[in-house]
Amino acid sequence: MNALRSADFHHPVRIYWEDTDAGGVVFYANYLKYFERARTEWLRHRGIDQSALRAQDGTVFVVAESNVRYLRPARLDDLLDVTVALIETGRASMAVEQVVWRGDERLVEAQVRIGCVDVATFKPRRMPTPLLPQVH
Amino acid sequence: MNALRSADFHHPVRIYWEDTDAGGVVFYANYLKYFERARTEWLRHRGIDQSALRAQDGTVFVVAESNVRYLRPARLDDLLDVTVALIETGRASMAVEQVVWRGDERLVEAQVRIGCVDVATFKPRRMPTPLLPQVH
Amino acid sequence: MNALRSADFHHPVRIYWEDTDAGGVVFYANYLKYFERARTEWLRHRGIDQSALRAQDGTVFVVAESNVRYLRPARLDDLLDVTVALIETGRASMAVEQVVWRGDERLVEAQVRIGCVDVATFKPRRMPTPLLPQVH
Amino acid sequence: MNALRSADFHHPVRIYWEDTDAGGVVFYANYLKYFERARTEWLRHRGIDQSALRAQDGTVFVVAESNVRYLRPARLDDLLDVTVALIETGRASMAVEQVVWRGDERLVEAQVRIGCVDVATFKPRRMPTPLLPQVH
Repeated sequence: MNALRSADFHHPVRIYWEDTDAGGVVFYANYLKYFERARTEWLRHRGIDQSALRAQDGTVFVVAESNVRYLRPARLDDLLDVTVALIETGRASMAVEQVVWRGDERLVEAQVRIGCVDVATFKPRRMPTPLLPQVH
Repeated sequence: MNALRSADFHHPVRIYWEDTDAGGVVFYANYLKYFERARTEWLRHRGIDQSALRAQDGTVFVVAESNVRYLRPARLDDLLDVTVALIETGRASMAVEQVVWRGDERLVEAQVRIGCVDVATFKPRRMPTPLLPQVH
Repeated sequence: MNALRSADFHHPVRIYWEDTDAGGVVFYANYLKYFERARTEWLRHRGIDQSALRAQDGTVFVVAESNVRYLRPARLDDLLDVTVALIETGRASMAVEQVVWRGDERLVEAQVRIGCVDVATFKPRRMPTPLLPQVH
Repeated sequence: MNALRSADFHHPVRIYWEDTDAGGVVFYANYLKYFERARTEWLRHRGIDQSALRAQDGTVFVVAESNVRYLRPARLDDLLDVTVALIETGRASMAVEQVVWRGDERLVEAQVRIGCVDVATFKPRRMPTPLLPQVH
């Protein structure tokens, strides 16, 4: 993969009842939903429409690895800020760094590796052009 | 539709952290998941494999209407019993009555209307034979 | 209950991968999440903070009944508009009418009855003042 | 932490519509639900009742870190086997290794670090006795 650092992309997430559990905090699996929402909005911002990509090319992104550290819990009604930063990009995969913030408190942080695959066979596919490594 | 009463089918559901919310009880939308799980097991028990139905016939079941009364809350670690009773059946739709029990306490009850449709067009499709109204 | 018609409140909901199922559409239980999100924002708009209500008064809202009709499916990337209209209000409960729109297509519609209860005992509690029936 | 290898614990998980997404496979965040279900059953098997632990001691388990590799996708109707193996245990935390199997196919694997905390303050708490490191 080719190292590449991009500016952080930001996506707001509000915490509702559905997100919390009987411990009074956000259930740990749900942060992966927020990371996915933020990545989708980041892709949309870069001109990549996943519905069209699937319908026209039969290409989807799949998560290959997620490494998450849960530092502090989020709670009902919190308004969070979820970031995306592209840290590596290859021909058929990429890696992003994502953080969940509540104001200036760092709540959850993750590295996520994502592959680009054929929706039917799950075989690797070339990444959409806006995500391919730049040749200088 | 043709009135038809069948014996209740039972499906056990355990409540985990994912099911609860910060109010300390099961989040109301989640009961619809348990109703769906019970219907799927009831269909499987009648020899209807939804994966095969979709792959071979392009037919899926869709919920047209759900009327739910939440009588008492379920909580973490509860072991519930979810029932299915077929109350009406037509050529392209059916209605079931479903109840969530905790021992002999009735927690949640629902009537659910379900249609049989083409997965691509969402046009009505004939119900699988084991669910069609019986002619006497 | 006291009949009372209020102007609709609107809340936007974007559909992500987490919301869809293998049928290619939004899973039916998830619309109840969107209805809850919209009600929470509607309460916030009326000055009712559910976190504070629970922490200070030990009062929470619970859904007593949800009657939902699923007219047309929502899909990945759809941007929906979810409405809330208060249709009845009593001393310890209320009823709202909610609709999910995609542009001018009516996708899902619901009537939801909500009670106000003590978080520990689930006994009825007086509704917060901004929701109480108006005396003329 | 004190290295300690235990025999694997097994927990079955059936895949329903709620678990899948429009890509036709299980949504990646949902595997963290299955891992949690399996850990809860493993704790129950060891005599640890999380509801009682919270009600009587105000103690809850929280996930501090989850490192997950998604090797192959699970699909609708799959019957999976989720394992738990305790790999490290300390006074206020532990680490487990978990795998999702479909027959002899390894689908998803994870290391999860879990802390034991006070439900109100989230300060570390001593682990329940059945999980404490053994002194030889």
